[in-house]
Formats: sequence, structure tokens, C-alpha cells
Amino acid sequence: MKEILSKLKFNQDGLICAIVQDYSSNQVLMQAWMNEESLILTAKTGFATYFSRSRGKLWKKGENSGNLQQIIKIEIDCDFDCILLKVKQTGVACHTGAASCFFTSIEISNQD
Amino acid sequence: MKEILSKLKFNQDGLICAIVQDYSSNQVLMQAWMNEESLILTAKTGFATYFSRSRGKLWKKGENSGNLQQIIKIEIDCDFDCILLKVKQTGVACHTGAASCFFTSIEISNQD
Repeated sequence: MKEILSKLKFNQDGLICAIVQDYSSNQVLMQAWMNEESLILTAKTGFATYFSRSRGKLWKKGENSGNLQQIIKIEIDCDFDCILLKVKQTGVACHTGAASCFFTSIEISNQD
Repeated sequence: MKEILSKLKFNQDGLICAIVQDYSSNQVLMQAWMNEESLILTAKTGFATYFSRSRGKLWKKGENSGNLQQIIKIEIDCDFDCILLKVKQTGVACHTGAASCFFTSIEISNQD
């Protein structure tokens, strides 16, 4: 864990991008940010903790709603600047009540 | 498209996080960054174009390797600061030759 942490590239705000995916369906649920402390807490406790940029503090997912994310697997990308969490989601991931935060589509056009 | 673009929250560098997922297997392949121009090009051409932070320019995925990403669906998250691309990947997504950039695991420990 320490070796991996030393390789991770946190951005200028000390944060790293985290992608959250349902371990069973493989649906992408949400994207959030982690600082080193939240990543260590996530790995230690087995439940996802992020860093809230708007509130400027740690945020255990589901601490109020009960919609916890149990960690099944944590993966790092090839250039060590993004984390993929595979989770067992209790309830829904999105604050809107949707299963996933990704529910709005952009139209694709092959025309000029 | 214009309405969605006006809602998107690009960061202080004019970039937005893009998660790339295989449309068929749902495997998360990589994470990259887009500016507005690369998103418009991606939607218009039907092939993924990103913004390379290291090279400071647009980067059509696979332009050299041939490992193009055909766009099947573009989705936006609930707070308009992350994009999910569902793609048909030619070849592999990772420059290392791996199918996905996420091939390194972090150990999870429930101990203090």
C-alpha cells in the first residue's frame, strides 16, 4: 500500500480522480475525488470515503443516506493518476435517486 | 448539444474528466481529459478525441496506433462535470498493450 501511495500522482490540490463502478453489473455509478487520507481510509475500512471539493472535507459515501459503498476491489491506472473502485452499492449512488449519476445523454452526429 | 455544452463545468484549465468504457463488456478502459473542442469533435466524428495535458494539444485516440474508439454513447453525470464515453475499442486501450489501463490493484485491509 505504501509503495503504491508513493507512486500515485495527486493533482495540485492533492486529489486524485476516482471512478466508481458496480462490481457485479459493471455499471459506472459516479466519479468523485480522493485525497491520500480518504484513499487510506477507504482501503482500511472497506467502505468508500471521498474528499468533497465543495465542502473541503472528507465524505464517507452514504454516511447520511445509508447508501454505503462496500469496496470489492481498488485498481490504479497505468500512469497512476486515476483510481477505479469496484463496489457493492447499497441503495443508489446518485443524490438524485438514480442508480447511476450518468443518466443524461449527448447526441452524436456524424454530420458537419 | 449546444444546451448541454453550456451546462458543462470545465475545470480551471478548460478540461472535463472523461471515463471510457467498453460498450459491450462494460469494462472501464481508461480515463482521459477533454476540452470543449475535443468533445465537439468526438460527437461530430463519432471517434474519441481527447486533450493531452502533457502535449498541450488535441489527441485523436488511435491516430498513430490504429486503436480507435468508435463512440456508441456519450453520457454526462448529474453535476455536469464528468463525461462517460461508451466505445467500441479497436485493439487495446492502454499504451502498455493491456486491454484496459486499470491493471494494478491496491490491497484492501480491514485491519487498523
